[in-house]
Amino acid sequence: MSSMDEKVRRLLDGAPGPDEESREAIRARAANVLRPTGALARLDEVAAWLAAWQRTTKPAVRKPAVAVFVADHGVTAEGVSAYPAEVTVAMLRALQEGVATAAAMARDVGAQISVIDVGVGQPTGNIAMEDALTPSRFESCFEAGREAVRDLETDLMIFGEMGIGNTTPAAAVAATLFGGPVEEWTGRGTGVDDETWARKVQAIERARARVAPDASPMEVARQVGGSELAAMAGACVEARARSIPVLLDGFVVTSAVAPLAVLQAHALDHCLAGHRSPEPGHAMLLDKLGLDPLLDLNLRLGEGSGALAALPLVRLAATAVVDVATFEEWGLTR
Amino acid sequence: MSSMDEKVRRLLDGAPGPDEESREAIRARAANVLRPTGALARLDEVAAWLAAWQRTTKPAVRKPAVAVFVADHGVTAEGVSAYPAEVTVAMLRALQEGVATAAAMARDVGAQISVIDVGVGQPTGNIAMEDALTPSRFESCFEAGREAVRDLETDLMIFGEMGIGNTTPAAAVAATLFGGPVEEWTGRGTGVDDETWARKVQAIERARARVAPDASPMEVARQVGGSELAAMAGACVEARARSIPVLLDGFVVTSAVAPLAVLQAHALDHCLAGHRSPEPGHAMLLDKLGLDPLLDLNLRLGEGSGALAALPLVRLAATAVVDVATFEEWGLTR
Repeated sequence: MSSMDEKVRRLLDGAPGPDEESREAIRARAANVLRPTGALARLDEVAAWLAAWQRTTKPAVRKPAVAVFVADHGVTAEGVSAYPAEVTVAMLRALQEGVATAAAMARDVGAQISVIDVGVGQPTGNIAMEDALTPSRFESCFEAGREAVRDLETDLMIFGEMGIGNTTPAAAVAATLFGGPVEEWTGRGTGVDDETWARKVQAIERARARVAPDASPMEVARQVGGSELAAMAGACVEARARSIPVLLDGFVVTSAVAPLAVLQAHALDHCLAGHRSPEPGHAMLLDKLGLDPLLDLNLRLGEGSGALAALPLVRLAATAVVDVATFEEWGLTR
Repeated sequence: MSSMDEKVRRLLDGAPGPDEESREAIRARAANVLRPTGALARLDEVAAWLAAWQRTTKPAVRKPAVAVFVADHGVTAEGVSAYPAEVTVAMLRALQEGVATAAAMARDVGAQISVIDVGVGQPTGNIAMEDALTPSRFESCFEAGREAVRDLETDLMIFGEMGIGNTTPAAAVAATLFGGPVEEWTGRGTGVDDETWARKVQAIERARARVAPDASPMEVARQVGGSELAAMAGACVEARARSIPVLLDGFVVTSAVAPLAVLQAHALDHCLAGHRSPEPGHAMLLDKLGLDPLLDLNLRLGEGSGALAALPLVRLAATAVVDVATFEEWGLTR
């Protein structure tokens, strides 16, 4: 166990658990609103989850926020992506200036967006050959993620990411944490051809082979992950410390927070899966983490887009319990 | 072919087809916005569909509307529902006064709601024994549906329904139109027990047995359907005449519009399936109609709730094409 694992465990141990009274209050109300029992059961459970982490019997999504973390990856030298690494900096600017997909989506659903550069122009080590991050840089990325959440006024958070090549470290982290054939964890990312996919598998195999079998979860993240993945782990821990519910996006985000769940069983209880992407590793990871996504629309952009698409469902779930009359209030018996 | 079938066919023949130029313009733009090709393919196709029926290269959902049709059903005499028929009138009032689920959801997603009583307190005939509606009442329900859409200022429509017992006529219409074992078309509705379900199957079998094998689609709707189903068929035809895109809700709504598709192959091209409910007949019906739903969350309320939950996805799909810069606009080559 590294000092980072100890730090994360300490932070998680110090964070509050869910507010079970609020959760039960919402469940009780959902069972009594003007509709057949269980007719919207899935949404009722989302509302109860929201209540538990917002610590209120009147859950609502009024100030959602998305934080998009952007970084470069040394593993692009292996030819694992359909796009040149230079696209990352162009997309950073497009996100900042509000013309990228996540920025337009955030406006549409009423979410504030922040874009955090955690290593554009400063690629990580090429994970096929060397550690992604030194211990000190890993910690500073993690802290940058915490910082991005620390003072945010929000009642629901989404993490997004952009970084050419980053489904490679995402698959490397997942494959190292959970084992199994690398081919099964490796997808087409932005849409690579067969040859590029084969190079990607090889790079991930070489990365995983470098990691000691007894490496701790945060050590896996440091050695074969990436800057924005480290930042999202930090952001997720900070959200937990502040009891802010989190709506997860796709494969890269889920891989970024997966080490937390390996470190401590209930570390992701404040997280809900927004969607399932067509990356094969994402479905496997959601399964390992016991997460059941709201949407399954083959979205594979990243930037937080899948979670942004699911956000209105979370808002609606709360409304459909809080703002609907109960049978008693409406003068009916069940 | 009855006079109603002739009337519906005439209305459909007179309605405009999709605007293929707008559809192609959105497809072309979607292929050039700042993201990997096809990363949000499913949403891009929703945007293209919206453009085709809104007849614009700038599709948007700014004035969505939900029309909820409410009626009573004589077949409740067979003991097919978990709730007494009197609940219909109480729910009509709850919808009108804004405290029912669909009303709260409509506010949440920014949709105007209208609630149309097409037969509360005037139950249809008990379809197990007699026709649901006389020809003249069938036509006046159909016309009430057209009327509800005729002057509505809207760019996306949802139809909702409420009526204790109405999954029984919905299953009867679908089973009669498409054949196959009635058990497979029959679900639990509001959540009936095994005995009630068995009575429901029997009632539907008796209803179907009454219909002549060569009955026309609209005759099937008249004989074994219901008042709100007839109204929704009319509303759907009127939306088509006005080229207003429609987001379909669950089993009852889909059964209500299914006769139109049997009558004329492309009658539902302006409709998108909002969700798939756990009613077994709904999945079968979507399959028969070639509709691929956006959501699959086991929602089984009706009132338009499943489509209301999907509405923000349609709005977001348009935004994610129209409001995102293209590679060229952003000074990048692909």
